Amino acid sequence: MKLKIGKWLDNSGPENDVVLSTRIRFARNLKNIPFEIKASQADQISVLEMVGYALEDLDLLKTGKLLNSQDLTLLYTQYLLERHLVSPDFAGSKLRHALYVDDDETLSMMVNEEDHIRYQVIASGLDFAGSLNRIVEFDDKLESELDFAYSADLGFLTACPTNVGTGMRASVLIHLPGLVLTKEIEKVLRGVIQIGLAVRGLYGEGTETKGNFFQVSNQQSLGRSETEIIEILDKAVRQVIQYERKAREYLGQNVKLEIEDKVYRAEAILKSARIITSEETMNFLGILRLGVIMAMIAEVDLKTINELMIITKPANLQIFYNQEMEPNERDEKRASLIRNRLLNREKPNG
Amino acid sequence: MKLKIGKWLDNSGPENDVVLSTRIRFARNLKNIPFEIKASQADQISVLEMVGYALEDLDLLKTGKLLNSQDLTLLYTQYLLERHLVSPDFAGSKLRHALYVDDDETLSMMVNEEDHIRYQVIASGLDFAGSLNRIVEFDDKLESELDFAYSADLGFLTACPTNVGTGMRASVLIHLPGLVLTKEIEKVLRGVIQIGLAVRGLYGEGTETKGNFFQVSNQQSLGRSETEIIEILDKAVRQVIQYERKAREYLGQNVKLEIEDKVYRAEAILKSARIITSEETMNFLGILRLGVIMAMIAEVDLKTINELMIITKPANLQIFYNQEMEPNERDEKRASLIRNRLLNREKPNG
Repeated sequence: MKLKIGKWLDNSGPENDVVLSTRIRFARNLKNIPFEIKASQADQISVLEMVGYALEDLDLLKTGKLLNSQDLTLLYTQYLLERHLVSPDFAGSKLRHALYVDDDETLSMMVNEEDHIRYQVIASGLDFAGSLNRIVEFDDKLESELDFAYSADLGFLTACPTNVGTGMRASVLIHLPGLVLTKEIEKVLRGVIQIGLAVRGLYGEGTETKGNFFQVSNQQSLGRSETEIIEILDKAVRQVIQYERKAREYLGQNVKLEIEDKVYRAEAILKSARIITSEETMNFLGILRLGVIMAMIAEVDLKTINELMIITKPANLQIFYNQEMEPNERDEKRASLIRNRLLNREKPNG
Repeated sequence: MKLKIGKWLDNSGPENDVVLSTRIRFARNLKNIPFEIKASQADQISVLEMVGYALEDLDLLKTGKLLNSQDLTLLYTQYLLERHLVSPDFAGSKLRHALYVDDDETLSMMVNEEDHIRYQVIASGLDFAGSLNRIVEFDDKLESELDFAYSADLGFLTACPTNVGTGMRASVLIHLPGLVLTKEIEKVLRGVIQIGLAVRGLYGEGTETKGNFFQVSNQQSLGRSETEIIEILDKAVRQVIQYERKAREYLGQNVKLEIEDKVYRAEAILKSARIITSEETMNFLGILRLGVIMAMIAEVDLKTINELMIITKPANLQIFYNQEMEPNERDEKRASLIRNRLLNREKPNG
């Protein structure tokens, strides 16, 4: 099986030396149907049906697919989670839920997660303006089909008060190896948190930071417009980008050999290991990414690294090889997949 | 500067898949001169002179050289220690001492160490018989020139009671990665210790075991002949060799992939690192050695690995590059030297 990766991983976006991707999601609930916490199974089915009809009416099933509970096996849901298309909550949920995802995996919508619907757009690099335009356009389309719970005072109503108002969460996935290696990371992230933003691991709240990848997002969704919230976030992210670039410059000028050592070792291990865990993979790919950007490595491109970050994850790996595997088998296949990709050998499967 | 390595490192000896080298040393003291602990400086000079004359008379200065205190700088003594030509005691001593070493570094003699003289022969692989013949021959020559302190009851008299009798210590340098990886090492070494043998690190008493190299030697020097002592040792070592080979066979049959992973990672790091410590080097070379023997790696030969084990040591490295270096400079030059050797690039210096 050949796996396509999301278009947002093609490394085409702005500031992609530091920012992998930009994501905006809106949380919405349908008027006259109880929030999920009180929703009966019949209510959940109503939501699924109403959303299904809306997607059909809007012709969106031609450019994407709606995955329902029977598509969403444990393994496949994990696969979607690893691809940033569903949330950990969605993956662990017992609700009757569904996922809409468009063909290039840059627009998706969870149905019956914490809110009735949550949709996101995800773009390569730092692109809040483009992402906001796209999600607002999608939002307008949906609003032509569905009635959302809305209060003139508060804005959109959501299951959790932290989402009330715009129902928006905007975030970037940002790679900060320079700040980690210069040990400035804590100071910089403290600054980010102080202006009211949140910093998290790769897969959101409560997940670990691996390979020096971080997620920076807004906390506030109430009392300001989408544009205002995004302006604050965009400004902060641009500042962090400058700090990261300066840190890399410092490293290149002052401890180049140490960085080369890390980079060449990471590359060598990725090209040689016969067994490798997911965690090691992320850490070495993170260092390799830095090495490519710092022009220490020429023959690997960032798109390949982005792709490997996703397809080496446990569920993606199993779906790629089209077989269920125990952790030790996965560590073996993962090593083989990475080796083949980095050594530009023929792709093992398709 | 081009560094020759001792002939005993050429990997030509028997059982060299497990045993790196065999060493026998005799401790002797000159009659009518106090032991070192009571020797005046004049006594020490007498010893040096008598030994010097003996070497000249025996024509041994044509096939070797006598290094005196002014040759034996701190750095050069460390270099000799790393090459197993002097003991840690000799290196740390304040006595007026000297070292005789023959051209291929397989026969050497410390003058004014713990005893007046201690000489050793060192051979590739497991070769107690050949080594004993050679040292006895040398001993006979010396005895034709020098009077040794000897008691009809006890045998040769030495500064420390543990050496009285034969004055002999025989040992092998043995590589036991198989037993370490199968976790049988402690059991096997306990058995070795129980029959009265000693197990030590690479550089003798109190030194650490690195890269899974061990030194096995006799403890007893009194009450048995040299041949009897060596028979016990030889038998025990041959037993350990069998255990080690079985362990390697087991690894090759049952966890081949795990071993390949370790081997290929070690090779990759040695060929890629830009900075590497002495300790890491020994550990990775030890694994690489196993990989060569288990036929996982074809393009590296054991002689190169043996050579790297020695010339990457701190003092050897500095003498190889003909410059004093701080630890961080050494880590850099070491990485570069290893890379060049393993990639078969032209040797950086000479």
